Order: sequence, then structure tokens, then C-alpha cells
Amino acid sequence: MKKTILLTALVLSGLTSFAQSNDEKNIKLFYKKALTESKAYTWLEYLSNDIGARLSGSQNAQLAVNYTKSQLESLGLDKVYLQEVMVPHWVRGEKESAFILNGKVKTAVPICALGGSVATAKTGLTAEVIEVQGIKELAELGDKVKGKIVFFNRPMNPENVETFISYGACVDQRFAGAKEAAKLGAVGTIVRSMNLRLDDFPHTGAQSYGDLTKEQYIPTAAISTNGAELLSATLKSNPSLKFYFKQSCETLPDVLSYNVIGELTGTVTPENIMVVGGHLDSWDLADGSQDDGAGVVQSMEVVRILKNLNYKPKNTIRVVLFMNEENGGKGGAKYEEVSKQKNENHIFALESDSGGFSPRGFSIEADDANLKKIQGFRDLFEPYLVHSFTIGHAGSDISHLTSKAIVKAGLKPDSQRYFDYHHAANDKFDAVNKRELELGAATMASLVYLLDQTGIEMPKAN
Amino acid sequence: MKKTILLTALVLSGLTSFAQSNDEKNIKLFYKKALTESKAYTWLEYLSNDIGARLSGSQNAQLAVNYTKSQLESLGLDKVYLQEVMVPHWVRGEKESAFILNGKVKTAVPICALGGSVATAKTGLTAEVIEVQGIKELAELGDKVKGKIVFFNRPMNPENVETFISYGACVDQRFAGAKEAAKLGAVGTIVRSMNLRLDDFPHTGAQSYGDLTKEQYIPTAAISTNGAELLSATLKSNPSLKFYFKQSCETLPDVLSYNVIGELTGTVTPENIMVVGGHLDSWDLADGSQDDGAGVVQSMEVVRILKNLNYKPKNTIRVVLFMNEENGGKGGAKYEEVSKQKNENHIFALESDSGGFSPRGFSIEADDANLKKIQGFRDLFEPYLVHSFTIGHAGSDISHLTSKAIVKAGLKPDSQRYFDYHHAANDKFDAVNKRELELGAATMASLVYLLDQTGIEMPKAN
Repeated sequence: MKKTILLTALVLSGLTSFAQSNDEKNIKLFYKKALTESKAYTWLEYLSNDIGARLSGSQNAQLAVNYTKSQLESLGLDKVYLQEVMVPHWVRGEKESAFILNGKVKTAVPICALGGSVATAKTGLTAEVIEVQGIKELAELGDKVKGKIVFFNRPMNPENVETFISYGACVDQRFAGAKEAAKLGAVGTIVRSMNLRLDDFPHTGAQSYGDLTKEQYIPTAAISTNGAELLSATLKSNPSLKFYFKQSCETLPDVLSYNVIGELTGTVTPENIMVVGGHLDSWDLADGSQDDGAGVVQSMEVVRILKNLNYKPKNTIRVVLFMNEENGGKGGAKYEEVSKQKNENHIFALESDSGGFSPRGFSIEADDANLKKIQGFRDLFEPYLVHSFTIGHAGSDISHLTSKAIVKAGLKPDSQRYFDYHHAANDKFDAVNKRELELGAATMASLVYLLDQTGIEMPKAN
Repeated sequence: MKKTILLTALVLSGLTSFAQSNDEKNIKLFYKKALTESKAYTWLEYLSNDIGARLSGSQNAQLAVNYTKSQLESLGLDKVYLQEVMVPHWVRGEKESAFILNGKVKTAVPICALGGSVATAKTGLTAEVIEVQGIKELAELGDKVKGKIVFFNRPMNPENVETFISYGACVDQRFAGAKEAAKLGAVGTIVRSMNLRLDDFPHTGAQSYGDLTKEQYIPTAAISTNGAELLSATLKSNPSLKFYFKQSCETLPDVLSYNVIGELTGTVTPENIMVVGGHLDSWDLADGSQDDGAGVVQSMEVVRILKNLNYKPKNTIRVVLFMNEENGGKGGAKYEEVSKQKNENHIFALESDSGGFSPRGFSIEADDANLKKIQGFRDLFEPYLVHSFTIGHAGSDISHLTSKAIVKAGLKPDSQRYFDYHHAANDKFDAVNKRELELGAATMASLVYLLDQTGIEMPKAN
């Protein structure tokens, strides 16, 4: 009896180590392919330098749909198609202008309208300013903000090593600041840019007036961090200074746009779908090379590598390039809606929307069993310096997806530089390093492969 | 008996967890201080933008000595002093020029003389070119290189995730290529820049003629990677093309220079010294912000943080800013020479000379016991995404140091972008991210603190 057990154990351990070494070999191949023959950087160069900014509803967004569809087609996938989705169409109009009016001294400061904001009057808006550190402080001021511009100036906390934590703790000012200030009778809001550096770039981003009526909408803009520091310092010496800003943005009727989708059909359980994706749209101030051109081309590179190696996935691997993540999330929502109609079963979704920096690991949404499973891959990733496998937000485009059992993950790149570029005019091609981008793609391909091979853990029946 | 053991175990585990939590608290404080009030970035800005390139023997190198000494003095350390060292004084002279002469077509390519090279004739040097992939292939060619320019064109291997491995596998072409080619009668050498990207920056670096006589010296230069690709492609279509280059560099008499040293004197065993350092000199083509302004200001920041927290080290903590790492290593050698004369005992040396990128861990030279000890700190570093503690080269300035028992470590930052800048004209202040630099300094301070608190493991007596 003992002998039999031992023999079985040996055979099993032999098999395990064979499988392990096979995984090691394949993952090594993914990284090699990414670092030596990747198309990710070339694709990104085209998206950034030949097309450029790709705000939803714009002509450039449509060019990006056409380009990525044709590139996916050239890879020889089993299916490539477009999925219709109606998206908002907000336009910035003329370049904004803003001044601090301190007695006779008039100082220009860099601002940009927040996405979805209304325009000021054509002659601009001038008012006194009240500085607050956030929505809670605003609420305490009550009537005092009536007729004034509210200046939200809570900086991102530099102490967090993971910069997305600091972003999450600040971004309510940008997203809901105007809505809350309007309720109290403010005439406009200015928000400190979500940026850990002190520089002259204003950073745009989504904001929402929520359930206000259109008559209640007030114009809202982001100010550069240097501009915010100057405004705050000047307010201290002259609390009754005035601030002027002018913007001519507007929201046009919704536009027909598309998610771009490609598939490697599963060979064992094709009904089980694994999604890998990023978002095609970007803000309008620059090319969105980090946000999220990087995620788009990394997702395309995942299927390029697998197809190129003639990998036959057990499950269907589907690359989805989502439209309208930035100002509406309509692409992600539409994808889920259609998926539900078709009664599709997603077992895994992987998103890359945190920039194309050196990959550090994954931010995972999973139950204990699947988290442990992914953490069990740690040794396989160690040679590539990928080390962090923790519970956290996986991504906003895949946040809609629900299935009987689904594991979600977000690629987690080094985050120190992300907010230097995020939604600002410097998010350009030269902000992305080729090797860092490629390493991210290989890291994504490796996780897709490992979960395709081993499947996810199903919840236990009660 | 059992009860007693249990009680002791509880007490011990209580103590351990108290000590652990104290370390956790202190390390958190180091990172907080680095991320919120560091002087590292301000110091680097001065070194890069106010002083600039700091090649050994130059006036700028002396300005950097003066500046860092005065800054260390302002920190209130127990001692700050200079250590004399004679250093080589090589100067580049006029900007180099080079052309591919392909029949009637003359194409300019970017080159720069390698450090220590001799000049060409004033009218330049023109000769046919033989391309080789390295010194081994050169040796096989023998007499065929006589009268020719040898073109070393082995690229850095993109497959290695750790880019220093690829550098190590290529740099012999640069360091010894001219010497070996001269022995075979070549008239000059051109070396592909040590750069993983394709771009237009030539990357300089040290080279040595070894034991050749001065009459045998031949001029040697680096060519940009794009230039190397062009030269190689053109050679394929026309093997008898000629190459022209002109450079007017020369080696002047040695100059008196200095290592800059500051100390926090130990309060328990001051005779045991822990060194933390980087090198003050840089190449002459740019400001050396990554190589090694970053390491200099991080080392200074380590002692700033400890002093600012009023930390009383058990051992003497000594910051050493070495002179002449780039083209001679005289500062490191002198430091060891003096240390030996004084019969000093070093227990630890930490060098930062791999750039100011996000810290990933340490490259460690230690016996098994001390390696395990450092790896035992892993959990303390995890919140800061510092995860790699492996055996490897610690640093060239501390490579000379020997003691009865010494542990050496090199800060290991993310290495993907390092060779984009290394020894090239783009190694400037804007290549360094403030937060990445600061995180590196905090990581260094944490390891110095942990080893100061716990000591190193002594070799067992036989």
C-alpha cells in the first residue's frame, strides 16, 4: 500500500514538474516574442502620431476603430467585428483662458474645461473665489459660496506608494464638485489637477452634474498644480481677489461608435470566454498614449503572440477595445448588455488601463480560491520581476461584467509616473517606453495562458 | 515544563512582534519623509542644471565637490571632510564628426569619442570598414583588419528583462575593442552604442588600451544605434565603402580631486562602518542625472532622513560621494587604500549607481547567512513594492572594499529605461522622476537602518 502511494505521488509530482516546466517554457516564449518582435509599439505610434487624440464621438475615434479593426484582421484571428454603441459627443471648443485678478495685477494660469462641462458666457465668468479642501468642507460653508467660484484644492497625497490610492481619495472633487457647488448657488468651480507633480499642465477628466436640471449647470475647469498653488497663495494675501475664466465647450448629440472585437475561438470549451482589453477613446488634450493607447496595443499584442505561436486556446479568448471609457463608459456597458442577451459565459476578464509602465503584477477581483490560484503562479512570474498579486479594482470597462463565476484582473504597472501624464497635454508617444510596454503585454499573455490552461475555480455548490 | 516553554515562546513572540512593528513604523517614516520633504530632487536639480556635466578633472567636478560638501555640512552630521585623490583628466575637444562614404554619397552619422581615446589626425581618419560582432570574431579575422576601421556591432540582447545582463554581455567591445583591433593593425574602431533603443544618441564610456605602447593607440568612437544600423546595411550593399571620422580628444596630466565624505558616528560600535554612496563624477555629454547624480543625492538623502529623525546609529554610518567612477575608479580605490591604512572595519557598503528609477530591490554580495538575513526583511519592504533580493554585483566603487566580514549591496531600480540615457547627451534632469528617486532613497535608508539595528552575521570560527 505504502509503495503504491509513493509511486502515485512520484508520478504525480513528475507530471506536475513537467507541466510546470512547460508553463515556464511557454511564458519565456511570450516574453521573448514581446521583447523581440512585438507590434505593440508600432501600433501605438500609429494611434498616437498618425491619428492622435481620440475623444468619443470625434473623427479620430472613428479612425482608431478602423485602424485597430484592420490590424486585428491582419492577425488572422477567427473573428473580428464591430459592436455598435451610441456615445456622448462633448467638444472643447476654443482654448480656455483664465486669470487671477488681484487688484490691478492680472496673472494668466493654465486651465482646461472638465469633460461634460458647460461653457461660460461668451465674455467669460468673473467672481470671487472660495477655496475648499473637498466636498465636505464645501457643505459646511453652505450659503457662503453663493455667487462665487469654488476652488477645490485638495492635493493628491504623496505618501501613498500606490498612486491610484491617492487618486481615488481626490477625484470626487473633480467628478462631483461642480454638482455639489451648484446646489449651493456657486457660479463655477475650479479643481486642482489630479497630478502629484508641480507643473503647468491642467488635467481634464470626467465630471457629472448628476440629477441637476440643465439650468443649474455651472462651468467647471481644472487648473494646473502650479496654478493651484499660486491661486491658493494669492488668496491668502487677498481673500477678495477675483478669478476670470472663459470656455466654450458643449455637448452635441450622441454619435454612433463601436467597440472593436477579435476572437481566438476556444477548442475545448468555446462557450467559456476570456476577455482581454483596454479602451480606444482618449481625452482630447493629447494622444492618450498612456491612457489608454498602451492598454489597447497590449491587448492586441496578447492575441498576436498567442496566434503567432499557433496556440489553440481551450476557451475563447476575446480581445475587446472598448469605446468611451473616459466620459460615459458606454462601450463597457454595451458589451455587457449584448453579452447578456446572447447568454454568454465569461470566466475571466483582464483590463489594461493603468499605463504602459513596467508591469508589477495584477489587481484582482476574485474569491479566495481564485485569488490563491493566481498567487500560486507567483514563481512563474518571478523571472520577469512581476510580483504583486493583490485584491483590488480590476478596471472600469470590465466592471459591468457578471457571470456565474468570473475572475477579473487589471494589469498593475509601476504607477509613479502615471499621473504626470493622465488626461493632460503631455500624454504623448514619447511618454511610453517600448520595453516597459512590451513587458506588460507579455505579462498579460502569461496570465491569460495560465488561466486558459488551468481554468478558474468554480464556487462550491451548497 | 510545557507551561514554561509556552510562556517563553509567547514572551519571545511578543517581543518579536514588538520589534517588528517598530521596524515597520520606522520604515514607514523613512518613506514618508522621502516622499514629502526630501531634498534629493532639489540637490539633483542643482547638480544637473546649475553645475552640469562633471567629468573627472573638470571644473564642474570641483564645483560638485564644493556643493555636496556644503550641503552635507548643512545637515549637521558629526563629520564632513574631503579625501584627496589624483584623477585622470581626459577632454573631448571639438565635437566629433563622421560620415559613411558610399561612392559619391556622403552620409553624416552621430558619433562620440570613447573616454580615454586618442584623437584622429587633424584632417580625420578615412578607411574601409570591417564589421564584427565582437572580439572573438575580430581575432578570427587576423591580418584582414590591417589598415581598416573595425566596426563592433553586437547589439544588446533585448530578451533579458534585467538590462544590465545585456550590457555586461556587450561592453567588452567598447572597453577592449580598440586595444584588440590595434594589435591586429586596425587604424580605428567604431562601436555600436550600448543602448537597447534605436535612436540618434551616441553613448560614450570608458575604454582602455591596456598594455599597448602609446604608438599603438588608435582612435575609437561610439556610433548611435541608428547610425550603426545604417552603416551595417550600407556595408551589406557596398563592402568597400569608406568611413571617415574626426575627433580631437586628449588626455591631460592627472588632477587633484576629492571623495566627499560625511558621517553619523556610531553610538555603540563606532569602529564598525556602514558606507552608503554613489559617484560624483559623470560623463561629459550631459548632466549625468541618472548616472550618477541620482545615486549621489539618494545617498545624501539617507543620512538626511536618519539625522532629521534624530536616529542614533549603533554603527558609524558614512556617506561617500566617490570621484572618478567613470574613467578610472580612482576614488573607490583611494577610499579603500586610506581605509586600510587606518585599519578601519567596514561591515556594510551600499551603492546606488543604476539610476533613480522605481526601486525593485537589492543586488547583494554576501555569504548565505547574510543573504538569508536580508531576504528575511522581505515582508518589511513589501508595502513599498520592493521585492527582489538576489545575489549580484553590488557596485564598482565599493568593489575594492575588503574587511573581515562585509556585506555589500547595490540598489536595484527598474532597469528598462537606464540604457536609454546611459553616458549619452539625454541623461538630463528631466530623465529623473522625483517620486522614483525618493522611493529609492527611502529603500536605501531602510536597509541601512535594518542592518544597523540587527548587525551582520559573522563568519563562524572553524
